[in-house]
Amino acid sequence: MIGSGPFEIDPWSIRETGLDLDRLPASESVFTLANGHIGLRGNLDEGDPHGLPGTYLNSFCELRPLPYAEGGYGYPESGQAIVNVTNGKLIRLLVDDEPLDVRYGQIRSHERVLDFRTGILTRRMDWVSPAGKAIRIESERLVSLVQRSVAAISYSVTALDQPVQLVVQSELFANEELPDSEKDPRIESALPRVLHPEVHTNDTTSATLLHSLKGTGLRMAASMEHLIAGPAGTETHSSSSDNIGRTTVVCRLAPGRTLRITKFLAYGWSSQRSLPALNDQVRAALTAARYSGWDGLKDEQREYLDAFWESADVEIEGDAQLQQAVRFGLFHVLQAGARAEGRAIPAKGLTGPGYDGHTFWDTETFVLPMLSHTLPDAAAHALQWRQSTLPLAVERAETLGFAGAAFPWRTIRGQECSGYWPAGTAALHVNADIADAVLRHVNATNDDEFERSTAVELLTATARLWKSVGHHDPAGGFRIDGVTGPDEYSAIADNNLFTNLMAQRNLRGAAAACRRHPDVASELGVDDEEIAAWDDAADAMVLPYDEKRGVHAQAENFTNHAVWDFAGTPADKYPLLLHYPYLDLYRKQVVKQADLVLAMQLCSEAFTPEQKQRNFAYYEQITVRDSSLSAATQGVMAAETGHLQLAYEYLCETGMLDLHDLAGNTSHGLHIAALAGVWSGVVAGFGGMRHLEAGLSFSPRLPQELSRITFAIRWRGRRLRVEITPEQAWYSLAEGGEMELLHHGERLTVPANSAVLAAIPPAAPVEPLRQPPGREPLVRRLREARE
Amino acid sequence: MIGSGPFEIDPWSIRETGLDLDRLPASESVFTLANGHIGLRGNLDEGDPHGLPGTYLNSFCELRPLPYAEGGYGYPESGQAIVNVTNGKLIRLLVDDEPLDVRYGQIRSHERVLDFRTGILTRRMDWVSPAGKAIRIESERLVSLVQRSVAAISYSVTALDQPVQLVVQSELFANEELPDSEKDPRIESALPRVLHPEVHTNDTTSATLLHSLKGTGLRMAASMEHLIAGPAGTETHSSSSDNIGRTTVVCRLAPGRTLRITKFLAYGWSSQRSLPALNDQVRAALTAARYSGWDGLKDEQREYLDAFWESADVEIEGDAQLQQAVRFGLFHVLQAGARAEGRAIPAKGLTGPGYDGHTFWDTETFVLPMLSHTLPDAAAHALQWRQSTLPLAVERAETLGFAGAAFPWRTIRGQECSGYWPAGTAALHVNADIADAVLRHVNATNDDEFERSTAVELLTATARLWKSVGHHDPAGGFRIDGVTGPDEYSAIADNNLFTNLMAQRNLRGAAAACRRHPDVASELGVDDEEIAAWDDAADAMVLPYDEKRGVHAQAENFTNHAVWDFAGTPADKYPLLLHYPYLDLYRKQVVKQADLVLAMQLCSEAFTPEQKQRNFAYYEQITVRDSSLSAATQGVMAAETGHLQLAYEYLCETGMLDLHDLAGNTSHGLHIAALAGVWSGVVAGFGGMRHLEAGLSFSPRLPQELSRITFAIRWRGRRLRVEITPEQAWYSLAEGGEMELLHHGERLTVPANSAVLAAIPPAAPVEPLRQPPGREPLVRRLREARE
Repeated sequence: MIGSGPFEIDPWSIRETGLDLDRLPASESVFTLANGHIGLRGNLDEGDPHGLPGTYLNSFCELRPLPYAEGGYGYPESGQAIVNVTNGKLIRLLVDDEPLDVRYGQIRSHERVLDFRTGILTRRMDWVSPAGKAIRIESERLVSLVQRSVAAISYSVTALDQPVQLVVQSELFANEELPDSEKDPRIESALPRVLHPEVHTNDTTSATLLHSLKGTGLRMAASMEHLIAGPAGTETHSSSSDNIGRTTVVCRLAPGRTLRITKFLAYGWSSQRSLPALNDQVRAALTAARYSGWDGLKDEQREYLDAFWESADVEIEGDAQLQQAVRFGLFHVLQAGARAEGRAIPAKGLTGPGYDGHTFWDTETFVLPMLSHTLPDAAAHALQWRQSTLPLAVERAETLGFAGAAFPWRTIRGQECSGYWPAGTAALHVNADIADAVLRHVNATNDDEFERSTAVELLTATARLWKSVGHHDPAGGFRIDGVTGPDEYSAIADNNLFTNLMAQRNLRGAAAACRRHPDVASELGVDDEEIAAWDDAADAMVLPYDEKRGVHAQAENFTNHAVWDFAGTPADKYPLLLHYPYLDLYRKQVVKQADLVLAMQLCSEAFTPEQKQRNFAYYEQITVRDSSLSAATQGVMAAETGHLQLAYEYLCETGMLDLHDLAGNTSHGLHIAALAGVWSGVVAGFGGMRHLEAGLSFSPRLPQELSRITFAIRWRGRRLRVEITPEQAWYSLAEGGEMELLHHGERLTVPANSAVLAAIPPAAPVEPLRQPPGREPLVRRLREARE
Repeated sequence: MIGSGPFEIDPWSIRETGLDLDRLPASESVFTLANGHIGLRGNLDEGDPHGLPGTYLNSFCELRPLPYAEGGYGYPESGQAIVNVTNGKLIRLLVDDEPLDVRYGQIRSHERVLDFRTGILTRRMDWVSPAGKAIRIESERLVSLVQRSVAAISYSVTALDQPVQLVVQSELFANEELPDSEKDPRIESALPRVLHPEVHTNDTTSATLLHSLKGTGLRMAASMEHLIAGPAGTETHSSSSDNIGRTTVVCRLAPGRTLRITKFLAYGWSSQRSLPALNDQVRAALTAARYSGWDGLKDEQREYLDAFWESADVEIEGDAQLQQAVRFGLFHVLQAGARAEGRAIPAKGLTGPGYDGHTFWDTETFVLPMLSHTLPDAAAHALQWRQSTLPLAVERAETLGFAGAAFPWRTIRGQECSGYWPAGTAALHVNADIADAVLRHVNATNDDEFERSTAVELLTATARLWKSVGHHDPAGGFRIDGVTGPDEYSAIADNNLFTNLMAQRNLRGAAAACRRHPDVASELGVDDEEIAAWDDAADAMVLPYDEKRGVHAQAENFTNHAVWDFAGTPADKYPLLLHYPYLDLYRKQVVKQADLVLAMQLCSEAFTPEQKQRNFAYYEQITVRDSSLSAATQGVMAAETGHLQLAYEYLCETGMLDLHDLAGNTSHGLHIAALAGVWSGVVAGFGGMRHLEAGLSFSPRLPQELSRITFAIRWRGRRLRVEITPEQAWYSLAEGGEMELLHHGERLTVPANSAVLAAIPPAAPVEPLRQPPGREPLVRRLREARE
C-alpha cells in the first residue's frame, strides 16, 4: 500500500507513538469513541492542547439561520447544527505547582492505542514537569456499546522517581470555546455558547449539569461520578456552577505509588422530558454503570465486540495496512450506527462537527449495505428513523408541489436544512436511495415484520413522489426532468440516469411490496390503479443512452457537453468547487463523484457487461473524485469490469482516507460512508456481491497484491462465510440452513454444514484506463512520487 | 381601454385631483422628477405623510453584504444598493401653531399635475388648519434637464380669509428613516442611516451638507439656496448640523397675501474629488441656477422638452388613455436616461429603490431601442457606461473561467451584484443584449466615431466570451450549454434559443465590425483567425427545434418537459415565484416572460412567418407574464402574427402597468423598461419596425380600436415621420435626405421633402389564441370583470 502514516500498522488496533500536535485535530477524529448515541472525540484527557474539542449526543442540535442574498419560495429559513455538548472527558492535573500540558516539560514517551476488539482508547505517557518531576499517566476510555448512556474513564497517575503532590480536577465543562472554522462550505458553522444553563448539582464525588437550547428547545443532562483509589490522606471534594461541574482530588504520592480515578459519565437528552426526569435518567444510568464497575463495563464491551467481529470481520492476506484499514472502517461504522436507535446516522458519525452533523443519502447508500449484512438491527433502526420523519417529508413534498414524501437532502431531525437547492432539495434521488436501502434490507433479512411495519410505508411514500415528479412524454417515455443526481458537479438535469434507474427500482419495489401486503397497502390508501401506475412508470422510464458514443449519458445531453479542460487544470485547483464556479462545472463533462458508475453497481442488471465496460472507461476519464464517496464505488466497478489493479488502488485510497487524512479534513470528523465503502470495496468489489433478481450473487476475483480475503455476511437468518483466493472461493454457512447463490453466474447450493468450493474463472485481459491527469488513484500518485 | 384610474386622462399630463393616502406610495413614483442624474420622488413638500421618501443620485450607492447559507466560488460577497440621499425637497410649514399635515385639518382641494411638456410637477392645495385658518399652497418643482446638478422648487403660501403667521422650514435632511420593506425578493434591501456626515455649512439663506459612505467611499454634497418674497417684516435665517440644513422663514400674511420661496437645489457626488471640490461644485451649480432664475430654469426645461417631443412624440387617435400612457412612458424614459452621462440607466430609473437601484439587461434590450431612435446621445452614453466597466467585466470573465468580458447580471457600478447565480450570473445573454444594443445603435445612427471608439471594443469583448462559452459538438454544431435565458422560470439550460440567436448576432456583428475597422480590431489583438472563428461559431450555432411539435424549443429538451398545471393554479398563486419553488418551475413548461418570443422580435429573420405563427401560439399558452418585461414583447409579436386585438390589449397592459399600479409594486419605482415597451408596442408592434439585413422595415397595421398612429424616429441623421391609418401609411422625412425602407416587404424610397403613401395589405384572418387560464391580458380580465 502506501507505507505507514502517522499510525503503526497492526491488524486490530490503531497505535500512535509520540505526539505530533499538528496531527492532533485529525487524530482526535481517528481516536473518537462513540456508540451511535454519545460521541467523544479523542481529545487529550487534560483538554489542552486540542485541535477541536468535541462531545456529541446524536441529534442534539441547535437551529442556525440560513441566510440568502436572494431568497426564494420553499427555501429553509433555519438549519440545524450539532452542538458540542458538555465535555465530560476532561481530567486536568496539577503536578506540584505545574499543570500537565504536553507543550511544556518533557515527554519521555506518549502512546495512544485504539483497540478494535476491546473498544477502548488507551493512553500512556511518561512526562517530566518543567520542575523535573516525572510521572506516568495511564488512561483508558470507553463509550459503552452496551449501556447506551454511559462512558467511562480510568485515569491513573504514578509518581516515577520523586514524591509529588497532585491535584486532579475532573470536570463537566459546558460551552467550551471552539476554534474558528475555516471558510470552506463543506465545514460546519460554529455555534458559540448555545447551551443555556438550567440546573447544576453536586455531592462529594459527583456533579450534574442540565442545559437547554433556545432554538430547538431541547434539554440535556450530563453527570459524572468518581471512584478514587489513592494513598492515605487523599482528599476529594466537588463543586458545580452553571457551566462547570468539578471533582477535585488532592494527594501526595510517593515514588512508585499511583492515584487511580474511575470516572463514570452519563448523558441524556430529550425534546419532551422534564429537567427532573432527565436528571434522574442520567443519575440512574450512572448507578447502573457503577454497579457494573469499570471491569464490568470493559467485559461487556469486549463481549459486544466479539460478537460483532464474529459476524462482520473481513480478513485480508497480502496487505497488512489494508487489513487494518478495513477493520478501522468496520469499527467506526459500528460506532456510528450501533446504538443510534431512532436517530440518524450522520455523515461524520459522532466524530466531529463536519457538515453540521447532518445525515445525507450516504447513510442509506453506503453505510446501510454494510449494516444490513453485519448488524441488521442497526440498519433497521436507521430506516425506522427515516419513517419517524415521514410527516415532515410529506409536508416538504407538499411545499414542493409533489405527492408522497420528499425526504431532506441534509438534516439532523428530519427538516430540510439545505441552503443551496440546486445541490440540495433538487437531489430528489435521496428518496430512491432510502427505498433502495429498504428493499436491500428486506431482501437481506427477509424480515417480514420490518417489511409490514416500515418498508411498505416508506416505499409507498417515495413511489408516490416519483409518480408525481415524473411525467409521460408524447412518445410514452416516463421522464424525470430538472433534478440533480449524485454528481455534485452537475445539477438540475433532465433524466439523470442514476435517479431514473433508482426511481424505477423504487416504483417496482413499492408495487411488489404492496402486492405482497395488500392489507398494509390498503391502509395506506394504495389501490390496484396506483400500483399499476407505478409499474407503468417504471417500465416506461427514460434511460438516456448516447448512440453515437456508445455509452449511457449521465443525464440527457450530458455527453454533448464540453469536456472539462483537465490538461489545463493544475493540481492545486482541486477540489474544483473551491476554484471554479458551479456555472462552469455544471455545464461541462466533469464528474465529482461516481454517479452513473454508482448506478451500474446498484442497478447492475440494467446494463450489459459490455455497456459496463464502455461506460466505466468513459466516465473514468472525466471523474475527479473530489468527493470521498467516489473511490469505493469506482473500485467496485473497476473490479467488476476486470480492472483489478485499479480496484485495489481505489480500495487503498478509500481505506487510507482518514488514517492518512488524504482529503485534509479528517479533523472535522471521519468520513463514515467512505469507511463503510472499504467494506463494500472488499465484499462488492473483490467479492463481487450483488443482490440480483436471480438471488444473491458473487463474482470473486482478487488483485495480484492479495492472496486471500475472507468475510462473513448475514443473509436471511444465516451467516455466510466467503473465502477467496486467487483461483477459488469457498462458501460456507456459519449459521442457518442451506441456501442458493450465484458464483460468477453459476447457481450454487451451499449446504448447512460444509463448505462449497468454486473455481474462479480467469479474468479477461483489459486495456488500462485513463483518469484525468493528476487524478489517478491517490496511492498510485503517492507511490510514483516516491519512486 | 380600462377606464380612468387614479389619474385624469389628458394627452399631455398626469393629473390627480384629491389625495388618496393609500395610493401615495405609488403616486410618489408616478410623480417622480428626474434627469438621469438626480431623481426626486414625488413626495409631498412637507415630507409627511409619505409612502417612501426618495432622493437619488445616479450610481451613488453603498455596499451591502450578500450572505449565503452555503457559499460557492465566485459568488459576489457584497452587493451595491442605491442610497436615499439628502432630501432637499423638504419644505415644512407651520400655520400659526399647527404644522401643515394633510392628515389633519381639512383639505378643500388638492391637485397634482405632472406636465410632460413643461417637465414641471405642480401642486395646488387649499387647506384649512385644525384651528380654522385657510391657506393655499402652490408649489412647482423641477429637476433640470439642462443644468444637470440642479433642481428647484417654487413654493408659495397664500392666506385665504384670515391673517396667519407662517413659519416655513426649508431643509436638507440626511439619513431619513425609511419604512421597512416587505419580504419580497424583488424589493430592495433598506440601508439604514448610511450617510456619514463630513461637513455642514450655512449662511442666511443657504446651507450645504457633505456626507460620505463607509463602504464604497463615495462622497456627496447637497446644497440649497433660497429667494424669499414675502411681506414686510419677513425674517429669514439658516442653520446647519450634521444631518440637517435648515432655512427658516417667518412672516405674517394678511388675507390674500402670499409668501413665495424659490428654493434652488444642487447635488453632486464623486468617488475621487475632495470634499472642498465637491462643496465648490454644488455652490457653483447653485450660482448658475440662481443666475438662470426660476423662470429661466422653466424656460430652458420647456425648450429641451419641445425638442424632445418633436423628435420622439407618438400620437395616437382612438384611445385617449393610451395616448396619455405612451407619453407618460416616453417622458419617464427620458427622465431616466437624459443626463445619465457615464452612468447606468437603472431598471427603476431614479424613481425608487426597487431592485436596489440596479441596472439589468432591460436597459439594453427595452430602453435603448427607443433612445437610439429618439435621443441617440443618451443611448450612446449608456453604452459608453458599459464600456467604462469593461475592465470589471473582463475580470469577472476570468473568475468564471471565460475569455472576453462577462458583464454583470445586476449592478450599479459594474461589479456583479447577483446573489443567486442560476438566475443571475448564468444569464450570460446580457452580454449579447449589450452587443445587440451596440449593433442597433450603430445601424440607427451610422455613427462612425461611436463604432470605432466604443462598438468594436464591446463587440469584440462579448464575441470572445461566446467563443469561449460555447463549443463544437462532434456533429459540428456550436453549443452553448448550461446558461439561463430571459425566462426566469427556467435556468441552467442547454442551447437556450434566445441566447444562441443573440450570441450568433453578437459573433457576426463583431466579425463585421472588425472587418470594417481593421485598425481598431488590430489594436484589440483581433486577427483574421479570430474573426473567422467567430463567423464559424455563428454559422454552426445550434438552434433547437422540436420536429414533432413543429415549434422551436425555448431550450434543448424544453418542449419535452411537463406542462405546468395551469388549470390547477388559482389566481392568487401568481406571481408563481412567490408560491412555488424554483425546483418545480424550472422543470416544467411555464414561461415567466417572453424569451423565445422576444428572440422572434429581435432576430426576426431567423424565423419564417409560419414558424412565428406556430411558435407564438405555442408559447402564448404557457406564458404567465409574471414579469413586467413580457407584455410589450408579446404585443409586438401578436401584431406581427396578425393578432391585432391581442396586441392592442398587451399594449394597454404595458401602458397601464404603473399608472394603474397593476403589479402592485409601483411604490418601489416605475418599470422603466416596460415604459419604453409602450413605445416599442406602438413602433415595433403596430408600426412593425424592424432592423433587417435588407434595411429598415415597417409592416404597419392598426387594431380596430385605433384610427391613426403617428410617430417619428431618428435614422442615420434623418427624422422619419410615420403616419398609419387603417388602410394606408405615410412616410415622410422631417430632417435629412432621401432614404429607402421596406413597407410590408416592398422597397420604398422616401424623398427628402414629400411624403410617400403606401397601402396596407389586408391582414390574413387568424384563429384566436389561448393564454393560461386567468392570465389573459389584464385589460381583458378587468373588462370582463366589469361586464
